[in-house]
Amino acid sequence: MKRNLLLSPGPTQIPASICEVLGRPIIHHRTPQFQDILKEAAEGLKYVFQTKNDVLILTSSGTGGMEAAVCNLLSANDKAITVEGGKFGERWTELCCVYGVKTNVIKVPWGKAVSAQEIKKILDADKDIKAVFITLTETSTGVTTDVKSIAEVVKKTKAVLVVDAISGLGATDLQTDHWGVDVVVSGSQKGLMLPPGLAFVTLSAKAWELVPLSKNPKYYFDLTLAKKTAEKIDTPFTPAIGIIIALNESLKLIKKDGLEKLFAHYARLAQGTREAAKALGLSLFADASCISNVVTAINLPAGIDGEKLTKIMRDTHGITLAGGQDDLKGKIVRLSHMGCLDEYDMLTGISCLEKVLNKMGYKFSLGAGVAAAQKFFNTK
Amino acid sequence: MKRNLLLSPGPTQIPASICEVLGRPIIHHRTPQFQDILKEAAEGLKYVFQTKNDVLILTSSGTGGMEAAVCNLLSANDKAITVEGGKFGERWTELCCVYGVKTNVIKVPWGKAVSAQEIKKILDADKDIKAVFITLTETSTGVTTDVKSIAEVVKKTKAVLVVDAISGLGATDLQTDHWGVDVVVSGSQKGLMLPPGLAFVTLSAKAWELVPLSKNPKYYFDLTLAKKTAEKIDTPFTPAIGIIIALNESLKLIKKDGLEKLFAHYARLAQGTREAAKALGLSLFADASCISNVVTAINLPAGIDGEKLTKIMRDTHGITLAGGQDDLKGKIVRLSHMGCLDEYDMLTGISCLEKVLNKMGYKFSLGAGVAAAQKFFNTK
Repeated sequence: MKRNLLLSPGPTQIPASICEVLGRPIIHHRTPQFQDILKEAAEGLKYVFQTKNDVLILTSSGTGGMEAAVCNLLSANDKAITVEGGKFGERWTELCCVYGVKTNVIKVPWGKAVSAQEIKKILDADKDIKAVFITLTETSTGVTTDVKSIAEVVKKTKAVLVVDAISGLGATDLQTDHWGVDVVVSGSQKGLMLPPGLAFVTLSAKAWELVPLSKNPKYYFDLTLAKKTAEKIDTPFTPAIGIIIALNESLKLIKKDGLEKLFAHYARLAQGTREAAKALGLSLFADASCISNVVTAINLPAGIDGEKLTKIMRDTHGITLAGGQDDLKGKIVRLSHMGCLDEYDMLTGISCLEKVLNKMGYKFSLGAGVAAAQKFFNTK
Repeated sequence: MKRNLLLSPGPTQIPASICEVLGRPIIHHRTPQFQDILKEAAEGLKYVFQTKNDVLILTSSGTGGMEAAVCNLLSANDKAITVEGGKFGERWTELCCVYGVKTNVIKVPWGKAVSAQEIKKILDADKDIKAVFITLTETSTGVTTDVKSIAEVVKKTKAVLVVDAISGLGATDLQTDHWGVDVVVSGSQKGLMLPPGLAFVTLSAKAWELVPLSKNPKYYFDLTLAKKTAEKIDTPFTPAIGIIIALNESLKLIKKDGLEKLFAHYARLAQGTREAAKALGLSLFADASCISNVVTAINLPAGIDGEKLTKIMRDTHGITLAGGQDDLKGKIVRLSHMGCLDEYDMLTGISCLEKVLNKMGYKFSLGAGVAAAQKFFNTK
């Protein structure tokens, strides 16, 4: 009778109707049947990515999509800016390092976001910078980057803006074309409510201009080849057929509700959770100025071991939150709002968090968190 | 009421019990629950790969595993041998070319296999060759390579033998350790009876010695990192959780039957199919000396358009065979024996092939193919 509730920021909770699709007998990928699905999914992806450009599908984790961006856009000794304000921002730096890209790293204290001004200063000082790599939602800290303002700055230069939107796409606003974002990378297991196994990359015309200049060896992640085959409604290599069929279904669900409504839904879940944390006397890890509606990072009281807390919640109660990473290990819990989740899931998560905090000796008014969230959900 | 029978050589027919597993709600990958599965799957993979070495799991198509082999073992200007006797052999050459590897290409007529002697001659003449790339089952032609004899030759040199066993692993014998094969690459959607989305790579001690010497940039396909995390029963990046859980189940099914029994099962299905072709007056594309038990390529009679034939079989009757590729387009049909298939599936496929051949005007004794196969299946 134990619950299996994923309040972790990826993989996220998959709708039951999508699980059913994943369990269907497989079809062959080089058939008109699959081509119809691929064609429909391609349109659905453009809607979710808010772009008119092709969204290329790669069979890999999101990181494969990030590598594709770096190795198709740049070459050794090219210059780039990366922003390290959490675990996933660091991945851009690592990737640039592997490909010999000279990287100007902006270090941002965890919990805060980079400002467009900081990026502008560096771009102004060095006109040779070819790419700026940022993270839409820094899952490790619960911070959302102000992509719109950064795009304002970057689009006036010859550099391209590359956004890791693995966490957040479909759950928080990212107006790729309208804001002037050049490259967006995402993955299947977050806002798209699917199992992991697919990465997505879309490039603006400005970004495609860099691709022929890149000297890196590449084959599986060759985006030129991916684009050429996508134009023929095909994939260069056998794709993760099952997840693509499920993708087409999840895109239909998203389109049916509409992005605007979904963003408001997730913002509402996040706000309710923040009210609960406050009522429990717990502070939020991310700065209020850049707090994310996709994942909420809550500071734990001194003396409470977050590793133990999330372990008990998961193994005893079947509710999976994420703990802290690196320096934050044991110090925070992270609760996702992405995925197929509603206010009752949030109340369940908060209720279980209260139960275990209470058992672990934290002094608070039991029920205060749930009551605060419930109150918010009933007035909003 | 239309059937959906996949007699195509990848994706192959997935057992119903595995489909059910694929449709289950997802679990998080950084949990003891998933670690238990990963641990069990790692052991199961060693059994199927017939090796004591770690089998690394990558979230990608099989081609990603092939690229990982090339870019982790070699550097630009290293020397290698590739064998082109079909579409998939050519992929090794393309990959070597992308990474600047100087490649000695052995061109083998499609339908024939390379001999160990040909490889020996080149290795004897050039002691600097670092790797020999071959294909276990050339799916495009229905040919199986004599890996054992080639391994005998290669193991006496400093070169490593790299086998693309994407097609064939688990369906035809490949004694990795016993024969002395250094690197085996495979994928999920063939003999393992799973959806596409996972690649596998295993390396011998001799192959691991080459890895630190390679100068290629790599991140997602970095096998050193994959090995380090595998030792901690983890994956470097979010893996295709759903397919890995299903993998563990398919490995259990394979282990339960045992490889020897499975190889005999597939050989029996292949032999029955060959009897049917003969009875229909159709010849086999692959040379008898190297014919595969994994996929049977049948030459079509003059005047029969293979593209049209496979299209009718699939769209009207729900039975998917593969046609010919490149120069063989329209000239052959390919019928897979891999996957969750039995003699009745073969009879179904042959029966449908007869129906459509008959409709398309080929003159033969209707029922002769099914009768011949049935006779074989009932005496063997």
